[in-house]
Amino acid sequence: MTVNILGYAAQSATDMLAPFRFERRDPRPDDVVIKILYCGVCHSDLHMAHNDWGWSFYPLVPGHEIIGRVVAVGADVTRFQLGDPVGIGCMVDSCRQCSACEQGLEQYCEEGSTLTYSSYDRHDQRPTYGGYSERIVASEKFVVKVPDGLDLAGAAPLLCAGITTWSPLRHWKVSPGSQVAIIGLGGLGHMGLKLAKALGAEVTLFTRSPGKEADARRLGADQIVLSTDAVQMAAAKGRFDLIIDTVPYIHDLNPYLPTLALNGTLVLVGYVGDLTSTSTVPLILGRKAVAGSVIGGIAETQELLDFCGQHGITSDIEVIRIQDINTAYERMLKSDVKYRFVIDMASLKAQVGDNSSHGNTP
Amino acid sequence: MTVNILGYAAQSATDMLAPFRFERRDPRPDDVVIKILYCGVCHSDLHMAHNDWGWSFYPLVPGHEIIGRVVAVGADVTRFQLGDPVGIGCMVDSCRQCSACEQGLEQYCEEGSTLTYSSYDRHDQRPTYGGYSERIVASEKFVVKVPDGLDLAGAAPLLCAGITTWSPLRHWKVSPGSQVAIIGLGGLGHMGLKLAKALGAEVTLFTRSPGKEADARRLGADQIVLSTDAVQMAAAKGRFDLIIDTVPYIHDLNPYLPTLALNGTLVLVGYVGDLTSTSTVPLILGRKAVAGSVIGGIAETQELLDFCGQHGITSDIEVIRIQDINTAYERMLKSDVKYRFVIDMASLKAQVGDNSSHGNTP
Repeated sequence: MTVNILGYAAQSATDMLAPFRFERRDPRPDDVVIKILYCGVCHSDLHMAHNDWGWSFYPLVPGHEIIGRVVAVGADVTRFQLGDPVGIGCMVDSCRQCSACEQGLEQYCEEGSTLTYSSYDRHDQRPTYGGYSERIVASEKFVVKVPDGLDLAGAAPLLCAGITTWSPLRHWKVSPGSQVAIIGLGGLGHMGLKLAKALGAEVTLFTRSPGKEADARRLGADQIVLSTDAVQMAAAKGRFDLIIDTVPYIHDLNPYLPTLALNGTLVLVGYVGDLTSTSTVPLILGRKAVAGSVIGGIAETQELLDFCGQHGITSDIEVIRIQDINTAYERMLKSDVKYRFVIDMASLKAQVGDNSSHGNTP
Repeated sequence: MTVNILGYAAQSATDMLAPFRFERRDPRPDDVVIKILYCGVCHSDLHMAHNDWGWSFYPLVPGHEIIGRVVAVGADVTRFQLGDPVGIGCMVDSCRQCSACEQGLEQYCEEGSTLTYSSYDRHDQRPTYGGYSERIVASEKFVVKVPDGLDLAGAAPLLCAGITTWSPLRHWKVSPGSQVAIIGLGGLGHMGLKLAKALGAEVTLFTRSPGKEADARRLGADQIVLSTDAVQMAAAKGRFDLIIDTVPYIHDLNPYLPTLALNGTLVLVGYVGDLTSTSTVPLILGRKAVAGSVIGGIAETQELLDFCGQHGITSDIEVIRIQDINTAYERMLKSDVKYRFVIDMASLKAQVGDNSSHGNTP
């Protein structure tokens, strides 16, 4: 079963992605082997490929919005059968014993979870490779079921973009009547609009682009606030119970904090960097908070998929061939995607042999 | 009843406090007239006297940790009788109608609460004067009862230092088993230790001063962490459900945020200014938050006084005469007080007539 797998990898921080052959482990007793059908393209794939965060290692096969079908199961697997449509997100393992893991919050595992790629398996210490590939092998505990009727390609981004907005919506108890705002209309933001709306909230989009109004309304926004318009911002003062900030680069939070309601929280899910010159006055004079959140736990991810199945929610996607991934990265850098690229992994079959022997096949 | 009242006032941002005669209003139907017995000396009294925050006006009679006895009541007053020991804190009124006021959170009144001094009464638009004076008049809705048996002088700081730490302890649901840390051992910090301990939490003091250990333990700290010691800080990683930051000047939060537990909150109650270069990594990778909180509502303040009555908790104080207030301010600037000055207002009687005619008696 240690089969030769074809994928796309970056060989260094400056290389473009190119075909790469590697091995997947034989399934352990609790493992599920998944034939990958679709893989979403997350902004962090691009950051990791370029080593923007300093902890990438190579070869690096990106991809953590994985949808596929079960093609083999280990002896102890109980939850999955051959042919089941399933998903894998950003994590493939965790310590499973710490307080966070016991709460189903594996993303906050005290030992650090095992990421789907550019991480090391905690049992055999071999590198993990992501979903830009034919197959993946993971413990059934980190595999989620895709409910019947959900479009498989559109479901792929739920595994990262979806859960990243779902987890704070649930943690901060968004429900009918909640006032929720989303900052930024990208892969995460468009899922935030859909999910907050489906949870019954009144939903506002903060955006710098007037042209996004029609799309935002279609995706679930009840209101659009132009964050560059001081009058609109002043009118939104004190309104929001929860603001989900999906902006993936450094930006000023000061315009947004006064729009929080008493006890409101602005949660950062997009940008990992420093807060600079952020006024504490709105925090103190309204018991407001700036918080962070990263992806979501496995049980939460299953909850999200089930919710999306019930509400017919998937991501707005543009399906691409794996051969177009580098062009897709260029377009992502220009925000030229509505709202997520998803790779149709069947395109890998079209890969010619010469290129696919690139890389250090073991 | 519009009696000539003796107090101490600053006549400008650069003047020292000096005797000042002014009028208090006749009691309105819901008013209580209180003879002031003790008034705590809060750091904000000093800031306000010096106009450090830019919104002081003069003459300014500081004082918002007021304990006294009821000496007259308006016709509609139902909760108080002559002779009752009572307290007034930082607010003497609010709109009483907004969502915050309806929740008993008058400190977050959407119209802004009426502060005990350097504010304007919302009915007659006259300036409010604080507790460094013989008497005060306020609506019974903003007066709290002092439970039997509580030392009246030691109870005064509960009205600001106490409630400022009590409110976040309660809002963030501190209970037996909670891990709570207090940053800074001053007026607020020493109350935070006492109250968190009495609520059943395991309590840690963060301090820069090794010499404070014995005192901190006496006040309720189970552990002391020297914030200047990287080894001690590393050992505290991931521990605290709630950190109450009482430090009243700009400081770096980055050493403290990693000591929060999953879902933990660091709440600022002492410093109103900017967060500078604060890493969001611990927030995002542990769903942690930086929040703010200011004083507490009237119902919460009554709850605090009742709790302190049940647990025999008062502030550690040094009683001074009003004539020593300027020296006390100088000592406060040097943190030379354990842990709160309280003015014995009987000392006002010793005031000679010449000085006391200072200021513009209406």
